[in-house]
Amino acid sequence: MSSAPQLNIVPFVSVDSMMKLVLDIGIETFLKELAEYIEEDFRRWEVFDKTPRVASHSDDGVIELMPTSDGSFYGFKYVNGHPKNARQGYQTVTAFGVLSDVGSGYPMLLTEMTILTALRTAATSAVAAKYLAPKNATTMAIIGNGAQSEFQAMAFKAILGIGNIRLFDIDPAVTEKCAANLAEFGFSIVKCPTAQQAVEGADIVTTVTADKQYATILTDNMVGSGIHINAVGGDCPGKTELHKDILLRSDIFVEYPPQTRIEGEIQQLPPDYPVKELWQVMTGAIPGRTDSRQITLFDSVGFATEDFSALRYLRDKLRTSGHQQNLDLLADPDDPRDLFGMLLRARK
Amino acid sequence: MSSAPQLNIVPFVSVDSMMKLVLDIGIETFLKELAEYIEEDFRRWEVFDKTPRVASHSDDGVIELMPTSDGSFYGFKYVNGHPKNARQGYQTVTAFGVLSDVGSGYPMLLTEMTILTALRTAATSAVAAKYLAPKNATTMAIIGNGAQSEFQAMAFKAILGIGNIRLFDIDPAVTEKCAANLAEFGFSIVKCPTAQQAVEGADIVTTVTADKQYATILTDNMVGSGIHINAVGGDCPGKTELHKDILLRSDIFVEYPPQTRIEGEIQQLPPDYPVKELWQVMTGAIPGRTDSRQITLFDSVGFATEDFSALRYLRDKLRTSGHQQNLDLLADPDDPRDLFGMLLRARK
Repeated sequence: MSSAPQLNIVPFVSVDSMMKLVLDIGIETFLKELAEYIEEDFRRWEVFDKTPRVASHSDDGVIELMPTSDGSFYGFKYVNGHPKNARQGYQTVTAFGVLSDVGSGYPMLLTEMTILTALRTAATSAVAAKYLAPKNATTMAIIGNGAQSEFQAMAFKAILGIGNIRLFDIDPAVTEKCAANLAEFGFSIVKCPTAQQAVEGADIVTTVTADKQYATILTDNMVGSGIHINAVGGDCPGKTELHKDILLRSDIFVEYPPQTRIEGEIQQLPPDYPVKELWQVMTGAIPGRTDSRQITLFDSVGFATEDFSALRYLRDKLRTSGHQQNLDLLADPDDPRDLFGMLLRARK
Repeated sequence: MSSAPQLNIVPFVSVDSMMKLVLDIGIETFLKELAEYIEEDFRRWEVFDKTPRVASHSDDGVIELMPTSDGSFYGFKYVNGHPKNARQGYQTVTAFGVLSDVGSGYPMLLTEMTILTALRTAATSAVAAKYLAPKNATTMAIIGNGAQSEFQAMAFKAILGIGNIRLFDIDPAVTEKCAANLAEFGFSIVKCPTAQQAVEGADIVTTVTADKQYATILTDNMVGSGIHINAVGGDCPGKTELHKDILLRSDIFVEYPPQTRIEGEIQQLPPDYPVKELWQVMTGAIPGRTDSRQITLFDSVGFATEDFSALRYLRDKLRTSGHQQNLDLLADPDDPRDLFGMLLRARK
């Protein structure tokens, strides 16, 4: 904003602008920088006003609002989850979000968040793995090669240097799509015919399937000691990916327990089953991985602070990028008490 | 949408477009038609997914999300309330909202709601008064002549035929502004030097002040028998306008009791104090005004269904108006599972 801000204007980032911004910055650089914002906000976890998302469920899916605030900024994301959408050519998940100034309550930024969520989810997985994955990990299996899979691969390469990717999907065409999209980024890629084969030799196993009710993507015998499981796909009530026995053998790390117990893999466990909070690992209050034989599990469901970090990062990037439009979203009469007069004067 | 909808596009109504739409339709016609949608939704109250608004409080104000759904559409409003804003030339209250399709979770409409909220608040007051005000009411006092006051006058004229308006504000300049804005609409307007004088001879008393903590705009001796009080200004914890003794002499009607008990005038009363629900009056389940000497009180705080009605009305009007822009808000890859590929292809 200039020294004479137009109070009616809210900067807006369209899908097209978001893609141009990500490509200008570079996908890996974007993920790396975004991960720093996410980690920074996890480290100051206690300042945030936290609440489980506000969900409106229907037979076809869910629409959720995810608000949070650090006392200076307020952010929220609108996100839907409609598993049947893909059949009609719609996205299963679409999202947009707003960052606001707590002092005035005015929105400062409105943005698409379908692409931004894909990036922040992957960056969060990689940040968690920094603390939880075995040292010197080189190889990651990705079970489920849909819309989130390439973002996961790119984040783990950018942030942990993972160069070997083992892909599996129940639909081989989707694995081909994923491998083709990743071809130019210097990975060594192995396309596997079964999930069992994909996890062989993997230090990290990322599960990121969709559209399944209580699926069992990984069974207990597939999980050897010492690996880190990055469980991304099980993220709403009735939707899980891992066999319960795997959970019982793992040290489980979560974002916000009240939300994860409803939505995550741990919905299969008793409500008082012990889990560890990721933010406490990042602040050093509790250890992450302590043992090379330990199985660590990041039961990721996505939390409002991660979207907040993404909105905050985007805002900082927009200061210099120009990838935004001006949206006439807020009424700004000359005299705040003369809203009706503004309406009458619009006749001219 | 045409037969080949662009799935990335969400129609957007800016402040400027909203003003043009309202002026095209005509302010009184807009209020009358909007009131019909509001009444229709109150009459089918039980189908709505209702929740008190989700509020994030700070020292300076509050940011709220107000979602609701009727099972077919989902709507939410973002609204702030920052009493100190006016001093910096900002609006105390700004708002925007979204209407979505429950079946796909896709947003169908994004709109400014500062102006739309002013209209729906006034229309709701007038709808309530249709059931609660004395028969053949001709005269309304408006205590507080700020941003909402003219909208109230216009709605009561459009919907109840109120032609005589008696104005009072602690700032006479604000009363002058209100009277000047209303001058062309055929009211008989009396500017009063005190609230006491404003209520003399009024059938309806609308209180719509702002920026006061537990103020007493009306004292008990000012309220004669048989009037209807439309209490609009007391609408958050710690903000009330009426002396408690007035409440005790009135039949109190509210929108959604769990929210009104937190935010309305009745926060001054015990949590089990009997109140009547407006929707039940509209369906005929309980009576509204039954007696010419009865004091009726609509303790208005604004509820999510009213915004939903406004969004629904706006959507219907946009079908023929053209007062909208196309916003590239939603990612729409050719293959829903190929979000990353869409990003890569944007390089061209």
